[in-house]
Amino acid sequence: MINVGVIGTGMIGQDHIRRMTSVLSGVRVCAVSDVDAATAASVGERVGAAVHTTGQELIADPSVDATLVCSWGPTHEQYVLAAIAAGKPVFCEKPLATTTEACQRIIEAETAYGGRLVQVGYMRRYDSAYRALKAVLDSGQIGNPLLMHCAHRNPSVPGVYEKDMAITDTAVHEIDMVRWMLGEEIRAVRVLVPRRSRNGGILQDPLFLLMETAGGAIVDVEISVNIRYGYDIRGEIVGEDGTAALGELSPLVVRHAGQVATPVPADWRERFIRAYDIELQEWIDGIAGGVPATGPSSWDGYAAAVVSDAGVSALHSGERVPIALMDKPKLYAAEAAA
Amino acid sequence: MINVGVIGTGMIGQDHIRRMTSVLSGVRVCAVSDVDAATAASVGERVGAAVHTTGQELIADPSVDATLVCSWGPTHEQYVLAAIAAGKPVFCEKPLATTTEACQRIIEAETAYGGRLVQVGYMRRYDSAYRALKAVLDSGQIGNPLLMHCAHRNPSVPGVYEKDMAITDTAVHEIDMVRWMLGEEIRAVRVLVPRRSRNGGILQDPLFLLMETAGGAIVDVEISVNIRYGYDIRGEIVGEDGTAALGELSPLVVRHAGQVATPVPADWRERFIRAYDIELQEWIDGIAGGVPATGPSSWDGYAAAVVSDAGVSALHSGERVPIALMDKPKLYAAEAAA
Amino acid sequence: MINVGVIGTGMIGQDHIRRMTSVLSGVRVCAVSDVDAATAASVGERVGAAVHTTGQELIADPSVDATLVCSWGPTHEQYVLAAIAAGKPVFCEKPLATTTEACQRIIEAETAYGGRLVQVGYMRRYDSAYRALKAVLDSGQIGNPLLMHCAHRNPSVPGVYEKDMAITDTAVHEIDMVRWMLGEEIRAVRVLVPRRSRNGGILQDPLFLLMETAGGAIVDVEISVNIRYGYDIRGEIVGEDGTAALGELSPLVVRHAGQVATPVPADWRERFIRAYDIELQEWIDGIAGGVPATGPSSWDGYAAAVVSDAGVSALHSGERVPIALMDKPKLYAAEAAA
Amino acid sequence: MINVGVIGTGMIGQDHIRRMTSVLSGVRVCAVSDVDAATAASVGERVGAAVHTTGQELIADPSVDATLVCSWGPTHEQYVLAAIAAGKPVFCEKPLATTTEACQRIIEAETAYGGRLVQVGYMRRYDSAYRALKAVLDSGQIGNPLLMHCAHRNPSVPGVYEKDMAITDTAVHEIDMVRWMLGEEIRAVRVLVPRRSRNGGILQDPLFLLMETAGGAIVDVEISVNIRYGYDIRGEIVGEDGTAALGELSPLVVRHAGQVATPVPADWRERFIRAYDIELQEWIDGIAGGVPATGPSSWDGYAAAVVSDAGVSALHSGERVPIALMDKPKLYAAEAAA
Repeated sequence: MINVGVIGTGMIGQDHIRRMTSVLSGVRVCAVSDVDAATAASVGERVGAAVHTTGQELIADPSVDATLVCSWGPTHEQYVLAAIAAGKPVFCEKPLATTTEACQRIIEAETAYGGRLVQVGYMRRYDSAYRALKAVLDSGQIGNPLLMHCAHRNPSVPGVYEKDMAITDTAVHEIDMVRWMLGEEIRAVRVLVPRRSRNGGILQDPLFLLMETAGGAIVDVEISVNIRYGYDIRGEIVGEDGTAALGELSPLVVRHAGQVATPVPADWRERFIRAYDIELQEWIDGIAGGVPATGPSSWDGYAAAVVSDAGVSALHSGERVPIALMDKPKLYAAEAAA
Repeated sequence: MINVGVIGTGMIGQDHIRRMTSVLSGVRVCAVSDVDAATAASVGERVGAAVHTTGQELIADPSVDATLVCSWGPTHEQYVLAAIAAGKPVFCEKPLATTTEACQRIIEAETAYGGRLVQVGYMRRYDSAYRALKAVLDSGQIGNPLLMHCAHRNPSVPGVYEKDMAITDTAVHEIDMVRWMLGEEIRAVRVLVPRRSRNGGILQDPLFLLMETAGGAIVDVEISVNIRYGYDIRGEIVGEDGTAALGELSPLVVRHAGQVATPVPADWRERFIRAYDIELQEWIDGIAGGVPATGPSSWDGYAAAVVSDAGVSALHSGERVPIALMDKPKLYAAEAAA
Repeated sequence: MINVGVIGTGMIGQDHIRRMTSVLSGVRVCAVSDVDAATAASVGERVGAAVHTTGQELIADPSVDATLVCSWGPTHEQYVLAAIAAGKPVFCEKPLATTTEACQRIIEAETAYGGRLVQVGYMRRYDSAYRALKAVLDSGQIGNPLLMHCAHRNPSVPGVYEKDMAITDTAVHEIDMVRWMLGEEIRAVRVLVPRRSRNGGILQDPLFLLMETAGGAIVDVEISVNIRYGYDIRGEIVGEDGTAALGELSPLVVRHAGQVATPVPADWRERFIRAYDIELQEWIDGIAGGVPATGPSSWDGYAAAVVSDAGVSALHSGERVPIALMDKPKLYAAEAAA
Repeated sequence: MINVGVIGTGMIGQDHIRRMTSVLSGVRVCAVSDVDAATAASVGERVGAAVHTTGQELIADPSVDATLVCSWGPTHEQYVLAAIAAGKPVFCEKPLATTTEACQRIIEAETAYGGRLVQVGYMRRYDSAYRALKAVLDSGQIGNPLLMHCAHRNPSVPGVYEKDMAITDTAVHEIDMVRWMLGEEIRAVRVLVPRRSRNGGILQDPLFLLMETAGGAIVDVEISVNIRYGYDIRGEIVGEDGTAALGELSPLVVRHAGQVATPVPADWRERFIRAYDIELQEWIDGIAGGVPATGPSSWDGYAAAVVSDAGVSALHSGERVPIALMDKPKLYAAEAAA
């Protein structure tokens, strides 16, 4: 039984607490903390967890085996660094940190520690559809991947959604997915801006993101965040001998009113809820087996941050923005994205 | 250029005239006749065809190379017999005749003539989807066919549609299709009667027809004639090693309002219009090449009539009704359904 | 944390133990027993569970909150009765018992106890595809269900598979599913026997099972247990205004070698593994919430046994076999199949 | 009966002659000519058509109602101009002419003539799938189109296929299709060059073409001409409220060897044969009805040439290439692409 402390008991934190207490196996939520002490106290009482005043204190709690960081982005760095300092596994929701420099500091700390302790919450790698897609690609059936066509479609976004978030909050999932799927870093990005949807208000929506990988594959991503019809994540890898794509998720086929129809998920929750479950279960199982982190690493968090920054820059400039990463520490050499 | 005379200038006759004058190649409508002289005159004038008082007179017209019979069912026998007597090719819309005995008289006349002159209008054999299905079956890919699941769905039927027509007008297409597809005669039928659709009024709708072939394959046919959502003809052959089925016809995929949808045809016209074109074009091409009839034969018309009669009997009795066919004349030996 | 005792540590028992120890939440395997004492001891040691000599002893163990019966079918009755006598929840893998009389004795005992304690392992009710299908049906979108077309296809079956097992082991899942899906009892069954697949050896394969529900809906089930291409469970409900069907399960679409293809599951494990997880998790959550049984009841187990017996009889006689159930105790009145 | 003269009796010319003599209605091939007199003589004899020494002579033949130009590209201009001079309808296979200036001379001649006589052979506008796609777009169901994703995939290309042909021969079909589909001119193009397929030899394959329309829609086109698996033309329009796409063309669904599969066309002939039929039939029907040209105009041929030239330039430079068209004569104002 792994004892997990949760820093940040807002929406995502509470959802992970629900997951760990009522869905997953081999885990117990033993401690919580939040900048809002009242919330932390209320959640702690409900699940029978100790309540700490600060994340640092929670990490230091000897009963805490591993930490889940779900607090506000700008606070991630300090908690991740504290966990590394304590030599304890830490799962950090995306982003790893809000600046490239902060990500680099985490990499340095983890490298100095000499082993992986940090995992970042890019859950698409745990989605059964993406995993099936990667399995076909890795089997060699369609040959070397040359292009990948992606679409990220939301029915709508909340009022707080701002221009850059199309890259930093939305496309960042595609950025991590592509690095993992193709096993290559991204060397340049460009953002094309088509005419606007009336559904997007003043927002520039949709966008068309183009990424080049280190090996010269090209990935295009449609980002439509007000497309009304549903939450739809598409992806097709074009190989030398064929293509492999995400298909429809629902096994339901309804013949009604002149058409044969299959439902589309309403939102990301419906689409990826199982991926979140599997992501955390594998993290917990890893820890139980003595492996503190198997999923997206600090390096992945850093690379996603650099590409995301370049994407924002490309969105503003209209230009192709090349990407330069720091040298990759040996610690992360075994990672898929070499 | 084949000169065709058309007996019966009602709806189906006029549609075939339109087809022969504005869609097909190598054919001219040179003569028409109808029990309603005024209609015949009007149609004849429009397309520049001679107008005859009777079908017999039309068949005897030396300018007529071949005859298309589109008149009322009970009159089919006399025109087909007259065409055989004249030694001219005749295409007879279904049914070949309205009684088994009449079908047998036609077979006797054609056998006495010593060669095929008669073709019956079962157009499904010319549908590209059914042909693709048969090609897969005949390739051996799925092994010997053991079962076939079919559905015949109409959105609605006109007020004149009566109980027995579910067999004689609707299922008769499946009966011919199955004989052709599997290359076997049908040895018994049964009709199961589920609870009624509220859309069918006093009509018993749907029905579930079960056919056994001579070799022991079982074919089930759902007949739903008020299913509202569209005109949908389904078919799946279950072989030893896999299955082959009709899929969706429309290549259009629309993502809208929470679903991924493909349109279903609105009616039989939309679904089978090309099959009618190909059916007549192949008939004309055959005649031009010296082969008076290549499609469904008098034997097929006779067999469909016998199975259809048994189906009506089974609908009324609730029992399994075995089928006995007359000995098959050598003339039809080369036919698929041996 | 619910403490579960497992009676029967063979293949299915060990799989449920794996599930409860490494997949599900809120459950602990605290005790095991098996007719083979060595197996029980070995499994018990591995998971840290007490080992009992008999199922009865296990049920009586005060640390056992609930029992999972995974032993050989003929032993189910005694363990279920013992659990009822002890007033403890019991989950019994199918069948509930091997004779109708035994099922009735269980119903009597549970009725005498005055509340539900027994749940039977029909896991299709927990499959997300079937649940989506039922949700559409219950929404009224397609109107009253009139027909249902099903297929149960296995790529192959082991050598021990005998004639009657097509009904008792294979079709029994469809029998329970149909009762639950349509919310009606089955009033008669018939089995049609088409020609044999060469893949089935001396086995009569495929079969075509026809069921009539109390309200007159007709359900047809193709049972093909050597169809080679994969494990494929199909189902389409024909309503008054449209149909709803199970579609493809894999979200993967591969374009390769002349075709657009989606994978089919290789076996039942791949197809239904999540349904088993959800089935047990809901059972455990129910117990934790004070509800000993929410899924398939003793009545469902009894009804499935009666219909299955009738199916075997119909297979041997070739006749329509009507079904008479005992009066339904009030205890089960709230069940879907009224 | 329209009498058509065919200039150029090579492969495409002979295919159109076959079409006009054995598939289409209301047309006769009355004259032929070819640079290779022997071929012309042989073809002419076979179909009973007069044989002319030059295309100009053929056009001048009083028995010729309309001309079909299927000769080598560089000769198109002279024949089209001769037909305009003769005031006769002319159908010119693509390209309209091999230089922008030649296209402009044709536009000037036709404008001077004062009415449309010229139609260019972009057959995709006659494909039922593209027409269904356009019908949905025009219905407004998915809102204003913002993006379009396309793919043009060939299994392989002949040895003579050179670098620029990916634009001039392959993508040119997409260029015309997009102008027609969206009803807008193209204002800029860009070509991205991903890493190469090993199947393409020294050819740069695939390519990724990006087009901006006058109104700011962005269209991306994957051009893969050695993808082995089949001939596959994809297209998805992303609107404000949903998307509409080309789906699978074959209605056949085969379950075999672990997958559910639908065939992909083997080549362009299989994919577009009906579009060619309909294209010519509508042209003939138009002439018979007094309308010399209803399909792609000289303007469309000109615009495709200009965009195609820009595409070649973009392929070589790697830059975004803006497009400037001449002023559009009023004669073409009613065209969809305004």
